[in-house]
Amino acid sequence: MSNQKKVTAGILLIGDELLSGRTQDTNLAEIAKFLGPLGVQVGEGRILPDNADVIRDAVRSFSARFDYVFTTGGIGPTHDDITADCIAAAFGLGISEREDALDELRKRYSESDLNAARRRMARIPDGASLIDNPVSQAPGFQTRNVFTLAGVPQIMRGMLPDITHRIEGGSKVYQISVEASGIGEGDAAEGLAEIEARYDGVSIGSYPWFNDDLRGVNFVARGTDKAVLDDIRCDIESLVVNLQS
Amino acid sequence: MSNQKKVTAGILLIGDELLSGRTQDTNLAEIAKFLGPLGVQVGEGRILPDNADVIRDAVRSFSARFDYVFTTGGIGPTHDDITADCIAAAFGLGISEREDALDELRKRYSESDLNAARRRMARIPDGASLIDNPVSQAPGFQTRNVFTLAGVPQIMRGMLPDITHRIEGGSKVYQISVEASGIGEGDAAEGLAEIEARYDGVSIGSYPWFNDDLRGVNFVARGTDKAVLDDIRCDIESLVVNLQS
Repeated sequence: MSNQKKVTAGILLIGDELLSGRTQDTNLAEIAKFLGPLGVQVGEGRILPDNADVIRDAVRSFSARFDYVFTTGGIGPTHDDITADCIAAAFGLGISEREDALDELRKRYSESDLNAARRRMARIPDGASLIDNPVSQAPGFQTRNVFTLAGVPQIMRGMLPDITHRIEGGSKVYQISVEASGIGEGDAAEGLAEIEARYDGVSIGSYPWFNDDLRGVNFVARGTDKAVLDDIRCDIESLVVNLQS
Repeated sequence: MSNQKKVTAGILLIGDELLSGRTQDTNLAEIAKFLGPLGVQVGEGRILPDNADVIRDAVRSFSARFDYVFTTGGIGPTHDDITADCIAAAFGLGISEREDALDELRKRYSESDLNAARRRMARIPDGASLIDNPVSQAPGFQTRNVFTLAGVPQIMRGMLPDITHRIEGGSKVYQISVEASGIGEGDAAEGLAEIEARYDGVSIGSYPWFNDDLRGVNFVARGTDKAVLDDIRCDIESLVVNLQS
Protein backbone atom coordinates (compact mmCIF):
# COMPACT_ATOMS: atom_id res chain seq x y z
CA MET A 1 0.00 0.00 0.00
CA SER A 2 2.27 2.77 1.23
CA ASN A 3 5.93 3.00 0.35
CA GLN A 4 7.83 1.08 2.95
CA LYS A 5 11.20 2.50 3.83
CA LYS A 6 13.29 0.59 6.32
CA VAL A 7 15.80 2.69 8.22
CA THR A 8 18.16 0.89 10.57
CA ALA A 9 20.60 1.60 13.37
CA GLY A 10 23.42 -0.33 15.01
CA ILE A 11 24.40 0.26 18.63
CA LEU A 12 27.89 -0.16 20.11
CA LEU A 13 28.02 -0.31 23.90
CA ILE A 14 31.61 0.28 25.01
CA GLY A 15 33.21 -0.65 28.33
CA ASP A 16 34.91 -3.51 30.16
CA GLU A 17 32.49 -3.00 33.05
CA LEU A 18 29.59 -4.15 30.86
CA LEU A 19 31.41 -7.38 29.96
CA SER A 20 32.49 -8.24 33.51
CA GLY A 21 28.89 -8.20 34.68
CA ARG A 22 29.60 -5.30 37.05
CA THR A 23 27.36 -2.89 35.17
CA GLN A 24 24.02 -3.80 33.64
CA ASP A 25 23.53 -2.01 30.32
CA THR A 26 20.26 -0.16 29.92
CA ASN A 27 21.34 2.18 27.11
CA LEU A 28 20.46 -0.16 24.25
CA ALA A 29 16.80 -0.43 25.25
CA GLU A 30 16.68 3.33 25.93
CA ILE A 31 18.04 4.17 22.48
CA ALA A 32 15.77 1.59 20.81
CA LYS A 33 12.72 3.15 22.45
CA PHE A 34 13.91 6.61 21.38
CA LEU A 35 14.38 5.45 17.76
CA GLY A 36 11.14 3.45 17.36
CA PRO A 37 8.83 6.49 17.12
CA LEU A 38 11.28 8.12 14.68
CA GLY A 39 10.92 5.15 12.31
CA VAL A 40 14.33 3.62 12.94
CA GLN A 41 14.77 -0.04 13.82
CA VAL A 42 17.80 -1.36 15.68
CA GLY A 43 19.41 -4.13 13.62
CA GLU A 44 22.22 -5.24 15.93
CA GLY A 45 23.96 -4.30 19.16
CA ARG A 46 27.47 -5.08 20.33
CA ILE A 47 29.03 -4.91 23.76
CA LEU A 48 32.71 -4.13 23.29
CA PRO A 49 35.76 -4.10 25.55
CA ASP A 50 38.00 -1.03 26.00
CA ASN A 51 40.15 -2.23 23.09
CA ALA A 52 41.02 0.29 20.37
CA ASP A 53 41.23 -2.16 17.46
CA VAL A 54 37.96 -3.88 18.29
CA ILE A 55 36.11 -0.57 18.66
CA ARG A 56 37.59 0.93 15.47
CA ASP A 57 36.69 -2.13 13.37
CA ALA A 58 33.16 -2.30 14.77
CA VAL A 59 32.56 1.41 14.07
CA ARG A 60 33.75 1.02 10.50
CA SER A 61 31.66 -2.10 9.88
CA PHE A 62 28.49 -0.71 11.51
CA SER A 63 28.81 2.65 9.72
CA ALA A 64 28.72 0.77 6.40
CA ARG A 65 25.93 -1.67 7.37
CA PHE A 66 23.45 0.64 9.08
CA ASP A 67 21.89 4.02 8.31
CA TYR A 68 22.84 5.27 11.78
CA VAL A 69 25.24 4.11 14.46
CA PHE A 70 25.17 4.96 18.15
CA THR A 71 28.09 4.46 20.51
CA THR A 72 27.84 4.80 24.28
CA GLY A 73 30.71 4.99 26.75
CA GLY A 74 34.39 5.85 26.76
CA ILE A 75 34.24 9.63 26.33
CA GLY A 76 35.17 10.63 29.89
CA PRO A 77 38.40 12.17 31.22
CA THR A 78 40.47 9.07 32.02
CA HIS A 79 43.10 7.10 30.12
CA ASP A 80 40.65 4.28 29.35
CA ASP A 81 38.33 6.70 27.55
CA ILE A 82 39.39 5.98 23.98
CA THR A 83 36.18 6.15 21.97
CA ALA A 84 36.89 9.53 20.29
CA ASP A 85 40.28 8.31 19.06
CA CYS A 86 38.70 5.07 17.79
CA ILE A 87 36.07 7.00 15.81
CA ALA A 88 38.77 9.18 14.24
CA ALA A 89 40.83 6.07 13.41
CA ALA A 90 37.81 4.30 11.90
CA PHE A 91 37.38 7.09 9.34
CA GLY A 92 41.03 8.11 8.95
CA LEU A 93 40.32 11.51 10.48
CA GLY A 94 42.55 13.71 12.61
CA ILE A 95 41.52 14.53 16.16
CA SER A 96 42.30 17.56 18.28
CA GLU A 97 41.14 19.69 21.18
CA ARG A 98 38.37 21.87 19.86
CA GLU A 99 37.52 25.38 21.00
CA ASP A 100 33.74 24.86 20.71
CA ALA A 101 33.98 21.78 22.94
CA LEU A 102 36.17 23.63 25.47
CA ASP A 103 33.53 26.39 25.57
CA GLU A 104 30.97 23.78 26.61
CA LEU A 105 33.25 22.50 29.38
CA ARG A 106 33.83 26.09 30.60
CA LYS A 107 30.12 26.33 31.39
CA ARG A 108 30.79 23.78 34.13
CA TYR A 109 34.43 24.06 35.11
CA SER A 110 36.56 27.01 36.21
CA GLU A 111 39.91 27.38 34.42
CA SER A 112 41.68 25.77 37.38
CA ASP A 113 39.29 22.80 37.39
CA LEU A 114 39.70 22.41 33.63
CA ASN A 115 42.80 20.26 34.02
CA ALA A 116 44.55 18.15 31.39
CA ALA A 117 42.30 15.16 32.08
CA ARG A 118 39.10 17.16 31.61
CA ARG A 119 40.46 18.86 28.48
CA ARG A 120 40.65 15.36 26.97
CA MET A 121 36.86 15.56 26.79
CA ALA A 122 37.25 18.39 24.24
CA ARG A 123 39.18 16.18 21.81
CA ILE A 124 36.83 15.75 18.83
CA PRO A 125 37.42 14.08 15.43
CA ASP A 126 37.92 16.57 12.61
CA GLY A 127 34.66 17.69 11.02
CA ALA A 128 32.41 16.18 13.69
CA SER A 129 29.53 18.28 15.01
CA LEU A 130 28.92 18.52 18.73
CA ILE A 131 25.92 16.96 20.50
CA ASP A 132 24.57 19.00 23.38
CA ASN A 133 25.02 17.59 26.90
CA PRO A 134 22.73 19.51 29.26
CA VAL A 135 23.54 17.17 32.18
CA SER A 136 27.33 17.39 32.51
CA GLN A 137 28.34 19.63 29.55
CA ALA A 138 31.10 17.40 28.09
CA PRO A 139 29.67 17.10 24.57
CA GLY A 140 28.89 14.08 22.46
CA PHE A 141 29.55 14.35 18.77
CA GLN A 142 28.36 13.22 15.36
CA THR A 143 30.90 11.91 12.82
CA ARG A 144 29.18 11.12 9.51
CA ASN A 145 26.38 8.68 10.46
CA VAL A 146 27.84 7.84 13.89
CA PHE A 147 26.54 9.43 17.10
CA THR A 148 28.97 9.16 20.01
CA LEU A 149 27.27 9.45 23.39
CA ALA A 150 28.17 9.16 27.06
CA GLY A 151 27.90 5.84 28.88
CA VAL A 152 26.30 7.05 32.13
CA PRO A 153 22.57 6.52 31.46
CA GLN A 154 21.38 9.90 32.81
CA ILE A 155 23.90 11.74 30.62
CA MET A 156 23.26 9.56 27.56
CA ARG A 157 19.52 10.20 27.87
CA GLY A 158 20.13 13.95 28.10
CA MET A 159 21.91 13.90 24.73
CA LEU A 160 19.07 12.28 22.77
CA PRO A 161 16.97 15.44 22.20
CA ASP A 162 19.82 17.02 20.20
CA ILE A 163 19.83 13.97 17.91
CA THR A 164 16.14 13.89 16.93
CA HIS A 165 16.50 16.61 14.27
CA ARG A 166 19.45 14.78 12.68
CA ILE A 167 17.48 11.58 12.00
CA GLU A 168 15.61 10.91 8.80
CA GLY A 169 13.40 8.00 9.76
CA GLY A 170 11.52 5.49 7.65
CA SER A 171 8.23 3.73 8.08
CA LYS A 172 7.20 3.66 11.71
CA VAL A 173 6.87 0.23 13.24
CA TYR A 174 3.96 -0.31 15.58
CA GLN A 175 3.50 -3.09 18.06
CA ILE A 176 0.56 -4.80 19.72
CA SER A 177 0.75 -7.37 22.47
CA VAL A 178 -1.60 -9.96 23.93
CA GLU A 179 -0.89 -11.51 27.31
CA ALA A 180 -2.27 -14.99 27.91
CA SER A 181 -1.99 -16.87 31.18
CA GLY A 182 -2.45 -20.57 31.71
CA ILE A 183 -1.19 -21.73 28.32
CA GLY A 184 2.21 -22.90 27.09
CA GLU A 185 4.14 -21.54 24.13
CA GLY A 186 4.04 -24.95 22.45
CA ASP A 187 0.23 -25.07 22.59
CA ALA A 188 -0.01 -21.86 20.61
CA ALA A 189 2.79 -22.40 18.09
CA GLU A 190 0.76 -24.00 15.32
CA GLY A 191 -2.10 -21.51 15.48
CA LEU A 192 0.36 -18.64 15.66
CA ALA A 193 2.18 -19.81 12.53
CA GLU A 194 -1.16 -19.92 10.71
CA ILE A 195 -1.93 -16.35 11.75
CA GLU A 196 1.50 -15.12 10.68
CA ALA A 197 1.12 -16.84 7.29
CA ARG A 198 -2.07 -14.82 6.65
CA TYR A 199 -0.32 -11.45 6.91
CA ASP A 200 2.57 -10.09 4.88
CA GLY A 201 5.53 -8.26 6.41
CA VAL A 202 4.46 -8.79 10.01
CA SER A 203 6.53 -10.65 12.57
CA ILE A 204 4.85 -12.23 15.56
CA GLY A 205 6.91 -13.25 18.54
CA SER A 206 5.85 -15.32 21.52
CA TYR A 207 7.56 -14.89 24.87
CA PRO A 208 6.84 -17.40 27.62
CA TRP A 209 6.86 -16.32 31.25
CA PHE A 210 6.77 -18.19 34.52
CA ASN A 211 6.10 -17.13 38.07
CA ASP A 212 5.54 -19.46 40.95
CA ASP A 213 2.66 -21.70 39.89
CA LEU A 214 1.47 -19.65 36.95
CA ARG A 215 2.79 -19.69 33.41
CA GLY A 216 1.76 -17.87 30.29
CA VAL A 217 2.84 -16.34 27.03
CA ASN A 218 3.07 -12.79 25.74
CA PHE A 219 2.41 -12.49 22.05
CA VAL A 220 3.86 -9.48 20.29
CA ALA A 221 3.21 -8.48 16.68
CA ARG A 222 5.18 -5.73 14.95
CA GLY A 223 4.44 -4.09 11.63
CA THR A 224 3.94 -0.82 9.83
CA ASP A 225 0.17 -0.99 9.34
CA LYS A 226 -1.96 -0.28 12.41
CA ALA A 227 -5.17 -1.69 10.89
CA VAL A 228 -3.47 -4.98 10.09
CA LEU A 229 -2.10 -5.15 13.63
CA ASP A 230 -5.63 -4.69 15.00
CA ASP A 231 -6.80 -7.65 12.90
CA ILE A 232 -3.91 -9.73 14.18
CA ARG A 233 -4.76 -8.82 17.75
CA CYS A 234 -8.29 -10.20 17.22
CA ASP A 235 -6.91 -13.38 15.67
CA ILE A 236 -4.49 -13.94 18.55
CA GLU A 237 -7.19 -13.25 21.13
CA SER A 238 -9.46 -15.87 19.46
CA LEU A 239 -6.59 -18.36 19.44
CA VAL A 240 -5.95 -17.77 23.12
CA VAL A 241 -9.62 -18.18 24.08
CA ASN A 242 -9.70 -21.48 22.22
CA LEU A 243 -6.57 -22.71 23.98
CA GLN A 244 -7.74 -21.66 27.41
CA SER A 245 -11.12 -23.41 27.10
CA MET B 1 55.07 -14.72 38.84
CA SER B 2 52.58 -17.46 38.03
CA ASN B 3 51.76 -18.58 34.53
CA GLN B 4 49.00 -16.37 33.30
CA LYS B 5 46.49 -18.07 31.06
CA LYS B 6 43.77 -15.96 29.56
CA VAL B 7 40.61 -17.84 28.67
CA THR B 8 37.87 -15.91 26.91
CA ALA B 9 34.21 -16.22 26.01
CA GLY B 10 31.91 -14.46 23.55
CA ILE B 11 28.19 -14.15 24.19
CA LEU B 12 25.45 -13.98 21.53
CA LEU B 13 22.07 -12.75 22.75
CA ILE B 14 19.44 -13.66 20.18
CA GLY B 15 16.01 -12.13 19.70
CA ASP B 16 14.21 -9.22 18.01
CA GLU B 17 12.59 -8.38 21.36
CA LEU B 18 15.99 -7.39 22.78
CA LEU B 19 16.63 -4.99 19.89
CA SER B 20 13.19 -3.35 19.98
CA GLY B 21 13.71 -2.34 23.60
CA ARG B 22 10.75 -4.48 24.68
CA THR B 23 12.92 -6.88 26.69
CA GLN B 24 15.88 -5.82 28.81
CA ASP B 25 18.66 -8.40 28.56
CA THR B 26 20.08 -9.62 31.84
CA ASN B 27 21.64 -12.85 30.56
CA LEU B 28 25.00 -11.34 29.59
CA ALA B 29 25.74 -10.09 33.10
CA GLU B 30 24.48 -13.38 34.57
CA ILE B 31 26.78 -15.46 32.35
CA ALA B 32 29.72 -13.09 32.98
CA LYS B 33 29.29 -13.50 36.75
CA PHE B 34 29.08 -17.27 36.33
CA LEU B 35 32.29 -17.35 34.25
CA GLY B 36 34.41 -14.98 36.36
CA PRO B 37 35.04 -17.46 39.22
CA LEU B 38 35.82 -20.16 36.63
CA GLY B 39 38.63 -18.01 35.20
CA VAL B 40 36.90 -17.05 31.96
CA GLN B 41 36.62 -13.44 30.82
CA VAL B 42 33.94 -12.24 28.46
CA GLY B 43 35.58 -10.56 25.45
CA GLU B 44 32.54 -9.38 23.50
CA GLY B 45 28.77 -9.63 23.42
CA ARG B 46 26.38 -9.23 20.52
CA ILE B 47 22.64 -8.68 20.45
CA LEU B 48 21.34 -10.25 17.27
CA PRO B 49 18.02 -10.18 15.41
CA ASP B 50 16.08 -13.35 14.51
CA ASN B 51 17.94 -13.50 11.20
CA ALA B 52 19.48 -16.82 10.18
CA ASP B 53 22.42 -15.43 8.20
CA VAL B 54 23.42 -12.95 10.88
CA ILE B 55 23.27 -15.59 13.62
CA ARG B 56 25.16 -18.20 11.58
CA ASP B 57 27.98 -15.80 10.70
CA ALA B 58 28.30 -14.55 14.28
CA VAL B 59 28.46 -18.12 15.65
CA ARG B 60 31.18 -19.02 13.17
CA SER B 61 33.23 -15.89 13.87
CA PHE B 62 32.88 -16.11 17.68
CA SER B 63 33.69 -19.83 17.73
CA ALA B 64 37.02 -19.04 16.05
CA ARG B 65 37.83 -15.94 18.14
CA PHE B 66 36.94 -17.12 21.63
CA ASP B 67 37.64 -20.21 23.72
CA TYR B 68 33.94 -20.55 24.52
CA VAL B 69 30.77 -19.14 23.04
CA PHE B 70 27.38 -18.83 24.70
CA THR B 71 24.14 -18.22 22.85
CA THR B 72 20.85 -17.39 24.56
CA GLY B 73 17.40 -17.39 22.99
CA GLY B 74 15.66 -18.88 20.00
CA ILE B 75 15.37 -22.53 21.09
CA GLY B 76 11.65 -22.60 21.88
CA PRO B 77 8.80 -24.28 19.96
CA THR B 78 7.77 -21.52 17.53
CA HIS B 79 8.69 -20.73 13.92
CA ASP B 80 10.95 -17.85 14.97
CA ASP B 81 13.09 -20.21 17.08
CA ILE B 82 15.91 -20.77 14.61
CA THR B 83 19.04 -20.92 16.75
CA ALA B 84 19.59 -24.70 16.52
CA ASP B 85 19.44 -24.57 12.71
CA CYS B 86 21.86 -21.62 12.67
CA ILE B 87 24.37 -23.50 14.84
CA ALA B 88 24.18 -26.51 12.53
CA ALA B 89 24.62 -24.24 9.49
CA ALA B 90 27.58 -22.45 11.08
CA PHE B 91 29.50 -25.74 11.35
CA GLY B 92 28.09 -27.51 8.28
CA LEU B 93 26.39 -30.11 10.47
CA GLY B 94 23.15 -31.96 9.92
CA ILE B 95 20.30 -31.48 12.36
CA SER B 96 17.50 -33.84 13.35
CA GLU B 97 15.05 -34.77 16.06
CA ARG B 98 17.00 -36.68 18.68
CA GLU B 99 15.67 -39.46 20.89
CA ASP B 100 17.66 -38.34 23.96
CA ALA B 101 16.18 -34.85 23.66
CA LEU B 102 12.66 -36.25 23.20
CA ASP B 103 13.17 -38.31 26.37
CA GLU B 104 13.85 -35.08 28.26
CA LEU B 105 10.67 -33.50 26.88
CA ARG B 106 8.68 -36.61 27.87
CA LYS B 107 9.52 -35.89 31.51
CA ARG B 108 7.31 -32.82 31.16
CA TYR B 109 4.82 -33.51 28.39
CA SER B 110 2.36 -36.33 27.80
CA GLU B 111 2.46 -37.84 24.29
CA SER B 112 -0.63 -35.82 23.35
CA ASP B 113 0.96 -32.57 24.58
CA LEU B 114 4.18 -33.40 22.73
CA ASN B 115 2.88 -31.86 19.50
CA ALA B 116 4.86 -30.99 16.37
CA ALA B 117 5.78 -27.56 17.73
CA ARG B 118 7.22 -28.96 20.97
CA ARG B 119 9.06 -31.72 19.10
CA ARG B 120 10.96 -28.91 17.36
CA MET B 121 12.73 -28.45 20.69
CA ALA B 122 14.26 -31.91 20.25
CA ARG B 123 15.99 -30.92 17.01
CA ILE B 124 19.72 -30.95 17.85
CA PRO B 125 22.78 -30.49 15.60
CA ASP B 126 24.60 -33.76 14.86
CA GLY B 127 27.18 -34.65 17.48
CA ALA B 128 26.08 -32.04 20.01
CA SER B 129 25.75 -33.07 23.65
CA LEU B 130 22.68 -32.07 25.63
CA ILE B 131 22.71 -29.54 28.45
CA ASP B 132 20.35 -30.32 31.30
CA ASN B 133 17.34 -28.06 31.79
CA PRO B 134 15.86 -28.73 35.24
CA VAL B 135 13.39 -25.84 34.90
CA SER B 136 11.44 -26.66 31.75
CA GLN B 137 13.18 -29.82 30.42
CA ALA B 138 13.71 -28.69 26.79
CA PRO B 139 17.47 -29.17 26.68
CA GLY B 140 20.24 -26.81 25.70
CA PHE B 141 23.18 -28.28 23.85
CA GLN B 142 26.91 -27.99 23.31
CA THR B 143 28.30 -27.99 19.77
CA ARG B 144 32.11 -27.90 19.83
CA ASN B 145 32.94 -24.80 21.93
CA VAL B 146 29.45 -23.30 21.64
CA PHE B 147 26.88 -23.58 24.43
CA THR B 148 23.31 -22.95 23.28
CA LEU B 149 21.00 -21.91 26.11
CA ALA B 150 17.43 -20.72 26.58
CA GLY B 151 16.59 -17.02 26.50
CA VAL B 152 14.18 -16.90 29.46
CA PRO B 153 16.47 -15.87 32.35
CA GLN B 154 15.15 -18.43 34.89
CA ILE B 155 15.64 -21.28 32.41
CA MET B 156 19.03 -20.01 31.22
CA ARG B 157 20.25 -19.81 34.82
CA GLY B 158 19.07 -23.37 35.47
CA MET B 159 21.28 -24.64 32.64
CA LEU B 160 24.55 -23.17 33.96
CA PRO B 161 25.35 -25.89 36.53
CA ASP B 162 25.60 -28.50 33.74
CA ILE B 163 28.20 -26.32 31.99
CA THR B 164 30.67 -25.82 34.85
CA HIS B 165 32.34 -29.21 34.38
CA ARG B 166 32.83 -28.55 30.65
CA ILE B 167 34.86 -25.36 31.18
CA GLU B 168 38.62 -25.33 31.46
CA GLY B 169 39.27 -21.90 32.92
CA GLY B 170 42.42 -19.83 33.05
CA SER B 171 43.80 -17.42 35.60
CA LYS B 172 41.04 -16.12 37.81
CA VAL B 173 40.48 -12.40 37.66
CA TYR B 174 39.73 -10.66 40.93
CA GLN B 175 38.29 -7.25 41.43
CA ILE B 176 38.42 -4.58 44.12
CA SER B 177 36.41 -1.41 44.20
CA VAL B 178 36.64 1.89 46.05
CA GLU B 179 33.65 4.21 46.19
CA ALA B 180 34.38 7.90 46.59
CA SER B 181 31.76 10.59 47.02
CA GLY B 182 32.21 14.30 46.52
CA ILE B 183 34.86 14.12 43.81
CA GLY B 184 34.71 14.24 40.03
CA GLU B 185 36.21 11.72 37.64
CA GLY B 186 38.40 14.43 36.11
CA ASP B 187 39.95 15.29 39.50
CA ALA B 188 41.17 11.74 39.93
CA ALA B 189 42.29 10.98 36.37
CA GLU B 190 45.93 12.05 36.68
CA GLY B 191 46.54 10.29 40.01
CA LEU B 192 44.77 7.21 38.73
CA ALA B 193 46.96 7.04 35.63
CA GLU B 194 50.02 7.23 37.89
CA ILE B 195 48.75 4.33 40.00
CA GLU B 196 47.99 2.21 36.97
CA ALA B 197 51.45 2.89 35.53
CA ARG B 198 53.03 1.43 38.68
CA TYR B 199 51.39 -1.98 38.24
CA ASP B 200 51.67 -4.42 35.34
CA GLY B 201 48.70 -6.22 33.84
CA VAL B 202 46.10 -4.47 35.93
CA SER B 203 43.30 -2.38 34.51
CA ILE B 204 41.69 0.32 36.63
CA GLY B 205 38.38 1.77 35.59
CA SER B 206 36.59 4.79 37.01
CA TYR B 207 32.82 5.05 36.84
CA PRO B 208 31.17 8.35 37.76
CA TRP B 209 27.78 8.40 39.39
CA PHE B 210 25.29 11.12 40.13
CA ASN B 211 22.24 11.31 42.34
CA ASP B 212 20.39 14.48 43.21
CA ASP B 213 23.00 16.79 44.68
CA LEU B 214 25.71 14.22 45.26
CA ARG B 215 28.26 12.97 42.78
CA GLY B 216 31.10 10.55 43.08
CA VAL B 217 33.22 7.94 41.38
CA ASN B 218 33.57 4.19 41.75
CA PHE B 219 37.07 2.93 41.08
CA VAL B 220 37.41 -0.69 40.04
CA ALA B 221 40.69 -2.56 39.58
CA ARG B 222 40.84 -6.00 38.02
CA GLY B 223 43.76 -8.38 37.95
CA THR B 224 44.94 -11.89 38.68
CA ASP B 225 47.04 -11.15 41.81
CA LYS B 226 45.10 -10.52 45.01
CA ALA B 227 48.07 -9.02 46.86
CA VAL B 228 48.70 -6.50 44.10
CA LEU B 229 45.01 -5.57 44.14
CA ASP B 230 45.23 -4.92 47.89
CA ASP B 231 48.16 -2.54 47.28
CA ILE B 232 46.19 -0.77 44.60
CA ARG B 233 43.22 -0.41 46.91
CA CYS B 234 45.47 1.40 49.43
CA ASP B 235 46.86 3.66 46.70
CA ILE B 236 43.39 4.57 45.45
CA GLU B 237 42.15 5.21 48.99
CA SER B 238 45.08 7.59 49.61
CA LEU B 239 44.36 9.38 46.34
CA VAL B 240 40.71 9.78 47.29
CA VAL B 241 41.52 11.15 50.76
CA ASN B 242 43.85 13.72 49.17
CA LEU B 243 41.20 14.79 46.69
CA GLN B 244 38.46 15.03 49.31
CA SER B 245 40.55 17.22 51.64
